[in-house]
Amino acid sequence: MTILSTAHHRWPLLSSCLRRRFCSAKRLVSGEPEAPVVRTAIPGPNSLRLKNELSEIQNSDSVQFFADYKKSIGNYIADVDGNMLLDVYSQIASIPLGYNHPDLMEAVESTDMRTMFINRPALGVYPPKDHVQSLRSSLLAVAPPGMKNVTTMMCGSCSNENAFKAAFIWYRTKQRGGKEPTADDMRSSMQNQPPGSPQLSVLSFHGSFHGRTMACLSCTHSKAIHKVDMPALDWPVAPFPRYKYPLDQHTDYNRNEDQQCLAEVQQLIEMSNQRGRDVAAVLVEPIQAEGGDNFASKEFFTDLQKLTKQAGAAFIVDEVQTGCGGTGKMWAHEHWELPESPDLVTFSKKMYLGGFYFKPEFYVKQGYRIFNTWLGDPSKLALLDVTLRIIRRDNLLKNTQIAGRTLLAGLQALEEKYPALVHSARGLGTFCAITCRDVTTRDSILTRMRNCGINMGGCGEASIRFRPMLTFQTCHAEIILDRLSAVLKEF
Amino acid sequence: MTILSTAHHRWPLLSSCLRRRFCSAKRLVSGEPEAPVVRTAIPGPNSLRLKNELSEIQNSDSVQFFADYKKSIGNYIADVDGNMLLDVYSQIASIPLGYNHPDLMEAVESTDMRTMFINRPALGVYPPKDHVQSLRSSLLAVAPPGMKNVTTMMCGSCSNENAFKAAFIWYRTKQRGGKEPTADDMRSSMQNQPPGSPQLSVLSFHGSFHGRTMACLSCTHSKAIHKVDMPALDWPVAPFPRYKYPLDQHTDYNRNEDQQCLAEVQQLIEMSNQRGRDVAAVLVEPIQAEGGDNFASKEFFTDLQKLTKQAGAAFIVDEVQTGCGGTGKMWAHEHWELPESPDLVTFSKKMYLGGFYFKPEFYVKQGYRIFNTWLGDPSKLALLDVTLRIIRRDNLLKNTQIAGRTLLAGLQALEEKYPALVHSARGLGTFCAITCRDVTTRDSILTRMRNCGINMGGCGEASIRFRPMLTFQTCHAEIILDRLSAVLKEF
Repeated sequence: MTILSTAHHRWPLLSSCLRRRFCSAKRLVSGEPEAPVVRTAIPGPNSLRLKNELSEIQNSDSVQFFADYKKSIGNYIADVDGNMLLDVYSQIASIPLGYNHPDLMEAVESTDMRTMFINRPALGVYPPKDHVQSLRSSLLAVAPPGMKNVTTMMCGSCSNENAFKAAFIWYRTKQRGGKEPTADDMRSSMQNQPPGSPQLSVLSFHGSFHGRTMACLSCTHSKAIHKVDMPALDWPVAPFPRYKYPLDQHTDYNRNEDQQCLAEVQQLIEMSNQRGRDVAAVLVEPIQAEGGDNFASKEFFTDLQKLTKQAGAAFIVDEVQTGCGGTGKMWAHEHWELPESPDLVTFSKKMYLGGFYFKPEFYVKQGYRIFNTWLGDPSKLALLDVTLRIIRRDNLLKNTQIAGRTLLAGLQALEEKYPALVHSARGLGTFCAITCRDVTTRDSILTRMRNCGINMGGCGEASIRFRPMLTFQTCHAEIILDRLSAVLKEF
Repeated sequence: MTILSTAHHRWPLLSSCLRRRFCSAKRLVSGEPEAPVVRTAIPGPNSLRLKNELSEIQNSDSVQFFADYKKSIGNYIADVDGNMLLDVYSQIASIPLGYNHPDLMEAVESTDMRTMFINRPALGVYPPKDHVQSLRSSLLAVAPPGMKNVTTMMCGSCSNENAFKAAFIWYRTKQRGGKEPTADDMRSSMQNQPPGSPQLSVLSFHGSFHGRTMACLSCTHSKAIHKVDMPALDWPVAPFPRYKYPLDQHTDYNRNEDQQCLAEVQQLIEMSNQRGRDVAAVLVEPIQAEGGDNFASKEFFTDLQKLTKQAGAAFIVDEVQTGCGGTGKMWAHEHWELPESPDLVTFSKKMYLGGFYFKPEFYVKQGYRIFNTWLGDPSKLALLDVTLRIIRRDNLLKNTQIAGRTLLAGLQALEEKYPALVHSARGLGTFCAITCRDVTTRDSILTRMRNCGINMGGCGEASIRFRPMLTFQTCHAEIILDRLSAVLKEF
């Protein structure tokens, strides 16, 4: 089994001497503090007061603290109580370059940018004159290997919902032998009835997260509180491999996981098709992020693509959290080296706007079928354009690979030192995670880390995920590992 | 029957003399041309070339022309072929103040604004320090009468999907006697099965448009091409009144329409509840816009709210297209003078970001249930804040009432002059429409109007809708009426 996670490389914790050398390496963002600054418990009194005020308007339970974005810089987020935290959660993995990147700040001063901010077009009807050029220099310049088509959307859920729609149209068109919908299709669709509203389904995986609008939520299976009380579509759900770590010590077990999951996918598709709910698409994350940073092997995904194709379904890869460089490649699925591209690849978060790439077979032939008022936002596309230039100029994918190696090696050293507390260190690039012995320990570690100036996020039942910006460097990894080591020592 | 549309007021076409006086009235946006400038057929050669290039990337059938937003000003949109069109479609009703409004242009120069553009937070987790203040001075300052709670979202579909979710949570919580979900609810929801994933439904109306993500699309019944080939939820759909115009000549017929539709709503709710698909919410637009600018009376909506309440369902008013002043009031449902506010009011488009207002009963008690990564965009909220100040300062609601009266009176004069071509002139504020004898005539009128410099939109089967900005004045209405009169003469 080719190991997707680099978790099998074992590095010793860097010596203090070496660490100092790394820390003095050229910083990718100037103006960052040398280390976190903590003045109060976090959330501090100002955050607590504001959170209380916000709760009069809407539920504010999910608020961690209020931020001062003007004072935030690079990998550091300032809060409203004078604290400056090293941020390895980056707004749920949605900040590519860090806060107030000087090149972005300069870019938004231009009249072109300001014009775009205040004149938001209906992109599908009156696109701006440079729209084609803008798509080419941004989204198409970083398209997944082999993909040349893209449609823009607003957010991750919207991107997935529309990728499903493209798959449904493709599937029904195949069933009609390439013909357009019949008069009966059109008429019955207006009543939400078959054949116009067919009983098609999307197969998803346990532990997955694909968003929260209804079709997405029916494919999301990470936490019950996201789903409970909401009507859902009765679509098939397959198990996703759950590996044992270190990977190189559990090769047989993990390979068996792959095979069992694939067999179940196959069986679920057959069963669903037999009961008249054809599986039009199989939807998968390269790494199940919200669900616990669950990795799977290159072989699993390669076989999944093959199996999906044989079943006549579309293979949709949801790169909303994994896309845009965090794994050390632009798209996480590039690590799989598939024989052909996925059918549809969705994105959002660090890309500023949503959307999906698609193969030519998924090009919708009629207008207004994949459509909405805004279809994205050209001002976000312009920010992406600048951001991608900085990623190339500063070699940020390479930087992410290097920083990720230090981070993962450090996590592995910590799991060796504290095996009763943490285990299963894993990662690709800086997209790293470690699992705690239980949820109480995990939550306690997150709170303690925050109070010593490190902002991190949890995922799954008891995991900690690292989701830093692309300007996260080895020196930042060292600070985190030092403090995490100190926190683990306290238990 | 209290007539909601002002269509019963009959004004003569203004004399040329009076018209000149209006045209010389103070312009709300400086720098606009005196009249449209047309140099080529529209779309012109540059638009056609760009449209062809775009079609290599994605379907571009819906593109009307490519715009030059830097050259656009106020009510006028510039295209890439040197044409300058008077725009009464305003990006599918989503531009509040017109293009490049000088106050907006100035506002986005500030460091605060630029900081917001490049640092987009996860609003539900790390809101910016001025977020509470920003909600108060923007969204809450214009909240529908009696409403004090609001949640921000990204777009119209997202707002509706989340309003449904708030209604489902409220409904299930009522069923549990106020208790939180049980362990069985939680467990079964992870499998998309009842009781955790209940068979609840949302009742919508034929002719409605509520967006295009799956739950929204199941409530959308305006055009089959939006729906066909997509799986849909088997939710009840009621008829919406279809009035005869002029209203004052068809009082009995129209009142009967109201009563028949209300009776059917009642019956559909009972049937749906009986077959175990409880109607948790009734969803309605104040004016069915995409579906043909179908108006209904104040009595209809008042009775609908009452009936919905008696059935134990939530009353959701979708103000995505009608909200933000186009009808001469901030919210179209204010015209109904309801005894109490709707339960949920959704918005987007001219508000820059999406969201929904809700009554205290719909305040969700647990965090992360109405949630997503971005939960809107504070940079859009900041634009809204400036925009609302300009609406107040320049008295734009009053302006819209005045300009709307001229527009509607002119349309009525035209239907009297060309009864074989157009009929049923109707409107509230500048939210006006007229219906053509058939779709061919409608499309031909739209094309001819565009080629004489007026950008308009169609809706429903054969209607033309007017959806100008709030800076649309009597002088603009006069230009449109003049040209429409000339176009109708050609038939």
